[in-house]
Amino acid sequence: MFKKVLIANRGEIALRIIRAARELGIKTVVAHSEADAQSLPVLLADEAICVGPPPSGQSYLNIPNILSAAIVSGADAIHPGYGFLAENAQFAEMCADHGITFIGPTPENMRALGDKATARRVAREAGVPIVPGTDALQSVEEALEAAAEIGYPVILKASAGGGGRGMRVVHTAEDLERAVQQAQEEARAAFGNPEVYLEKYIEEPKHVEVQVLGDGQDVIHLWERDCSIQRRHQKLLEEAPSILPEAVRKGLVESAVRLAKHVGYTSAGTLEFLVDREGNYYFIEMNTRIQVEHPVTEMVTGVDLVKEQFLIAAGEKLRFKQEEIPLVGHSIEVRVNAEDPDHNFRPAIGTVETLLWPGGPGVRVDSHLFAGYKIPPHYDSLLGKIIVWAETREAAITRMQRALAETVIDGPGLKTTIPFHQKVLDNAFFRRGAVYTNFVARRMSE
Amino acid sequence: MFKKVLIANRGEIALRIIRAARELGIKTVVAHSEADAQSLPVLLADEAICVGPPPSGQSYLNIPNILSAAIVSGADAIHPGYGFLAENAQFAEMCADHGITFIGPTPENMRALGDKATARRVAREAGVPIVPGTDALQSVEEALEAAAEIGYPVILKASAGGGGRGMRVVHTAEDLERAVQQAQEEARAAFGNPEVYLEKYIEEPKHVEVQVLGDGQDVIHLWERDCSIQRRHQKLLEEAPSILPEAVRKGLVESAVRLAKHVGYTSAGTLEFLVDREGNYYFIEMNTRIQVEHPVTEMVTGVDLVKEQFLIAAGEKLRFKQEEIPLVGHSIEVRVNAEDPDHNFRPAIGTVETLLWPGGPGVRVDSHLFAGYKIPPHYDSLLGKIIVWAETREAAITRMQRALAETVIDGPGLKTTIPFHQKVLDNAFFRRGAVYTNFVARRMSE
Repeated sequence: MFKKVLIANRGEIALRIIRAARELGIKTVVAHSEADAQSLPVLLADEAICVGPPPSGQSYLNIPNILSAAIVSGADAIHPGYGFLAENAQFAEMCADHGITFIGPTPENMRALGDKATARRVAREAGVPIVPGTDALQSVEEALEAAAEIGYPVILKASAGGGGRGMRVVHTAEDLERAVQQAQEEARAAFGNPEVYLEKYIEEPKHVEVQVLGDGQDVIHLWERDCSIQRRHQKLLEEAPSILPEAVRKGLVESAVRLAKHVGYTSAGTLEFLVDREGNYYFIEMNTRIQVEHPVTEMVTGVDLVKEQFLIAAGEKLRFKQEEIPLVGHSIEVRVNAEDPDHNFRPAIGTVETLLWPGGPGVRVDSHLFAGYKIPPHYDSLLGKIIVWAETREAAITRMQRALAETVIDGPGLKTTIPFHQKVLDNAFFRRGAVYTNFVARRMSE
Repeated sequence: MFKKVLIANRGEIALRIIRAARELGIKTVVAHSEADAQSLPVLLADEAICVGPPPSGQSYLNIPNILSAAIVSGADAIHPGYGFLAENAQFAEMCADHGITFIGPTPENMRALGDKATARRVAREAGVPIVPGTDALQSVEEALEAAAEIGYPVILKASAGGGGRGMRVVHTAEDLERAVQQAQEEARAAFGNPEVYLEKYIEEPKHVEVQVLGDGQDVIHLWERDCSIQRRHQKLLEEAPSILPEAVRKGLVESAVRLAKHVGYTSAGTLEFLVDREGNYYFIEMNTRIQVEHPVTEMVTGVDLVKEQFLIAAGEKLRFKQEEIPLVGHSIEVRVNAEDPDHNFRPAIGTVETLLWPGGPGVRVDSHLFAGYKIPPHYDSLLGKIIVWAETREAAITRMQRALAETVIDGPGLKTTIPFHQKVLDNAFFRRGAVYTNFVARRMSE
């Protein structure tokens, strides 16, 4: 097992990694920005090294500084968390070049799956259904032909994209030419790569994703999560299992394993699917890293995914057979963001003065907050996650309502998304499982 | 289901009951003392009523005031928690007389099991092994005869006793007469009842207790807990399951169910046993209430025991069959007390200035603390409980070590038992499961 891991991340996920490492007896070094010098991961880790000032380009994305920090501190592994360098194949290679183990998939895995267009090709090879669509478009004519064949509405997406940027829904052939040009411009601006591709636009799909673990030879799934509660393609509330007929679930998880096996996937990863109202499912992309919403899977399976990442990276074979992965009860996670849901989710950061997290049965909290913490303005707005488990979905909803009712996060200027989550949990459509990716836009707009 | 429950308790268990009630849609009223007016249960409950000043005789044990509070607030049920009025059969009857449901066993259950000597008789009837011994002693001669038959060492215990008061180990016949007199005097002083009885003294036993749920007709067990880590008969750290051969566990849980069925037990209850080194087990007493250490059972079975208490009290039949109660993984609880383990566990209360509870996978916290809370001096020293779950006992120990390492409870004058627990978790005997009720005295004294 590793002796010391450098954590190239911040916030709740840095803390999550410290916890897993500590339970495995691995020393921890947090590589942090100047803005995070007084953060909880820095205070709780065995060591901390400042790798530069904000913004992230100068610190959390500064590969030379992070590698130097690992070398200087004697770390034999780097855990990238999510975001930042987590899906950067070149970084993973540079780690290897310096004799440091990157806790995550191989660079080949990332290359095969990191780019959406490439991932679609791999899925086709593995016989996994994908949304009907094209590879990277070479011309507007190609787009018009493909759209005519697939049928409108269609959606344009950036090959290098994510988070909704560069996406564009097109309802008629007349609108397509201009939309392609705009999408390309947006993609170039956002990702430095103008490539876009075209897909059938699935109306009112569920976003369901399958968690897998692979060791390069074998792959198992840990069932699936529903992440349909999104706002502008940002997930807000996730749950496991999804609300799907058993046959659809079975097809989904089997497809996910087939695809991951096809590339010899190593480490934890997530295959994202859209599921339409008829139960047809389409692979859309794979996230080759631990995800924000991984705890709901941990709650229904009892498996510690971050610990498994460490064990796999250390060369261990998978510790579980597929039939040893249970699916027990129901789990829900809400993302507590420093945003004002009453004012269009605008950032609302400040200093945490009063802090009271929920407790008691079936409640888990993953957060880097502490009373007195001054939230830095440079990073994403995630303050923490409240996760609950209960026997049934209904009981989990009730438990989350109970947990949110006893949570206090207060300070000047500070607002959180908790009131928004309370409205979702109260919503009759949500309660009966009628969740689709347009749920927030359609059911939550006053 | 009930509309409103009056909670006749304080601290973490009052909060635990609020949580269960809220998840069942029951309104909560906390009956509190003047000293607890600014406590978290009071702040989080739907209503609060002051029932008198400290000490407890004037408030938490003040039956007229508590019943009046229930009537005035329109409560249709009372949950007594543990301690205070929880095992008072007369109080339960008075609740019934006022048309208020007492959340707990029937007065008959309490009378059949509340008194240790009576409980021993019931156990004999049910064919459950008890420590060889006598009923309440009528004379010293009877004591001498019984001890000669049983064999020394023997232990004298108060019939009305608990918590170690009135207990006395006797190694020879010469010491017995004086010991009986002293034990009777102690029992009279502590409990107002001089009756004592005599038992074989089991050397180095494990304290193992079986959690049961009954609905008056059927009884199921929820496996067992080991509570051997005690100091002066006060439990400090508990775990589930116990470290026992499978055959012994099976005998224990079956005996517990047989005894509870014999009295038509209703609600949650715990049957305590001593287990000697040969695996012989002896029933010692039943606690006819929810216990401090109930969460470890919740963690390995997934059952919410306080919720089940409410459902049973509302007249529901048991919701689970015996074969539906799993035993998954391992759970440990530590009691965080405001005591200084470096100075003979003397009380060390104060105001909580800095508070950071642990989080992440497999960690549960049940506590009424908040930053700024002034701990009142009138009550027991329990500040909260940290509970962990993991796949194996070894992983649970490691997880608890991780959790305690990230916990901060600080303020002027305040000390906690966390450093003591850290030493227990580090102890080689503890780690290999060599836990007996004399563990603390024998292995933890420097």
